[in-house]
Amino acid sequence: MGAYVAGGSEFNRDTNYIATRITADGRDGYPVEPGRYRLIVARACPWANRMIIVRRLLGLEDVLSIGFCGPTHDQRSWTFDLDPGGVDPVLKIPRLQDAYFARFPDYPKGITVPAIVDVPTGQVVTNDFMQMTLDLSSEWAAYHRDGAPALYPEPLRAEIDEVARRVYTEINNGVYRCGFAGSQGAYESAYDRLFSALDWVSDRLATQRYLVGDTITEADVRLFTTLARFDPVYHGHFKCNRSKLSEMPVLWAYARDLFQTPGFGDTTDFVQIKQHYYMVHTDVNPTGIVPKGPDLANWLTPHGREALGGRPFGDGTPPGPTPPGEQVPVGHGAG
Amino acid sequence: MGAYVAGGSEFNRDTNYIATRITADGRDGYPVEPGRYRLIVARACPWANRMIIVRRLLGLEDVLSIGFCGPTHDQRSWTFDLDPGGVDPVLKIPRLQDAYFARFPDYPKGITVPAIVDVPTGQVVTNDFMQMTLDLSSEWAAYHRDGAPALYPEPLRAEIDEVARRVYTEINNGVYRCGFAGSQGAYESAYDRLFSALDWVSDRLATQRYLVGDTITEADVRLFTTLARFDPVYHGHFKCNRSKLSEMPVLWAYARDLFQTPGFGDTTDFVQIKQHYYMVHTDVNPTGIVPKGPDLANWLTPHGREALGGRPFGDGTPPGPTPPGEQVPVGHGAG
Repeated sequence: MGAYVAGGSEFNRDTNYIATRITADGRDGYPVEPGRYRLIVARACPWANRMIIVRRLLGLEDVLSIGFCGPTHDQRSWTFDLDPGGVDPVLKIPRLQDAYFARFPDYPKGITVPAIVDVPTGQVVTNDFMQMTLDLSSEWAAYHRDGAPALYPEPLRAEIDEVARRVYTEINNGVYRCGFAGSQGAYESAYDRLFSALDWVSDRLATQRYLVGDTITEADVRLFTTLARFDPVYHGHFKCNRSKLSEMPVLWAYARDLFQTPGFGDTTDFVQIKQHYYMVHTDVNPTGIVPKGPDLANWLTPHGREALGGRPFGDGTPPGPTPPGEQVPVGHGAG
Repeated sequence: MGAYVAGGSEFNRDTNYIATRITADGRDGYPVEPGRYRLIVARACPWANRMIIVRRLLGLEDVLSIGFCGPTHDQRSWTFDLDPGGVDPVLKIPRLQDAYFARFPDYPKGITVPAIVDVPTGQVVTNDFMQMTLDLSSEWAAYHRDGAPALYPEPLRAEIDEVARRVYTEINNGVYRCGFAGSQGAYESAYDRLFSALDWVSDRLATQRYLVGDTITEADVRLFTTLARFDPVYHGHFKCNRSKLSEMPVLWAYARDLFQTPGFGDTTDFVQIKQHYYMVHTDVNPTGIVPKGPDLANWLTPHGREALGGRPFGDGTPPGPTPPGEQVPVGHGAG
């Protein structure tokens, strides 16, 4: 995402996104169609990282192309500064806002990633990150790869929704509530709330390998992208510092287990993650200096979670190698 | 200390302090004399914390009184805001600068702690923190308690000086070099330099209990006050985040060993330490919000360093209880 936040007693995320959906039946005017849409992400952004993971796990690379914004941005939001000439090679625009304004000339809210753009018209279709990953699982099912896992299986949806809601309000958003608190009191409340929730998921994961059922689901994807950013960014930058993730044994082993699973660690760019937060949030880090630590080699150490059983991909299989042009740059991962 | 720092490519500490010394022979006009002087400190400040520790280890409480400034200060520097009426009860001044200006009306440099004030005249005598602790050991020897340890023994002075010099340039000052770096490059050089030095002391301490000889010396006091601030402040606030102290096994055990020794942990006020850095350095932390973490109970866990031998106080004994009025407030320590 990456909208700017005004100071105040408590951080509240504007959750009013573009609700248009791309569906199998095309009821909103945007039917699922191979090659028609382009997913725009930034590797740095936890909400966009979810889409990168799910698209890869489901094998949608050939039907839904992807464009990467750089890790930093200005007040006019995300740009294609990583691309030759600073222009997305498919959409031919320098800024993601151009796709937003193509559809809504006076679009008043934050220009956020992830977003899906309709390539023929150049117009943004949706930026509703909560719905977008679910729709990749359900509405795009006809185009999933062979062996794609069931990330949002019907029998478990109620439980996934319930866990994911609490993970969202308490953890995904909870770290921002700490970092953007407008007063000492608001921060301390946010801190207590965040670590209570981390204790809750830690307890839950002490005896089961994944959050819901015995396979990787949408709930794990949603928790993972926050955990991956915890020690490099949230611990220091957002003052979420009761302890590091690496000091919470259950969560740390769980996070490494996922990280070492194809689709998770291989979509995590620690360099861009750190650059984004530390360079964009000048209200929190006015110098813009990006910490050199922490040492991240420990993400690759054995986690021992296999002992809890579980079948990461259920009846499916792991995804194959990341397609050329979509790999995290060498030196941006763990180790 | 606590002088303000201007931005620049590399942080350089102004080491030009008031060089007047209080000596046994009084050659600078200030002879050692019980009850004549008042040591002014802030518990937050690592350089002042050295003086608090050494004064207590040597049992000088009855001959050299102490005044405590609060943890935060404004551009006019340290104040006696913790005292009734905001005035030091002995010097009868609200700001430490009043003692500086009483001696040097146009004093142009930073108003720093620790400082020693001549009570009859109200004039500052010295703020030369490098010399002050050594003089407590040597010049004030006639007034040491029975069983006071030899913190700066003649036969070890050359080695203590050498180790302390490197600890100062690379570690004590090295954390500030990271936190106040004026560019990404200066920061990264400072980070590498700091952690190289921490690796050096870690190697040195892997097989010996203390830095020099087999007893606590001035060198240990100087390293300790930086280590005590590492996880609560320097790790996040100054971006010294290759790892936490608690993730460096040798140094962490060494720091806990000292912390659990009378004179060290009982002079460490984690609340004031965090308040000082996070509230005073608004150029680094503009919100002024103080992190609630880290959990500090782990300072009290067993360290196992007794296995390395060593005699903490040599032929001497530990100090007795902290005098009334000088204890770290309840809730400000570890646990």
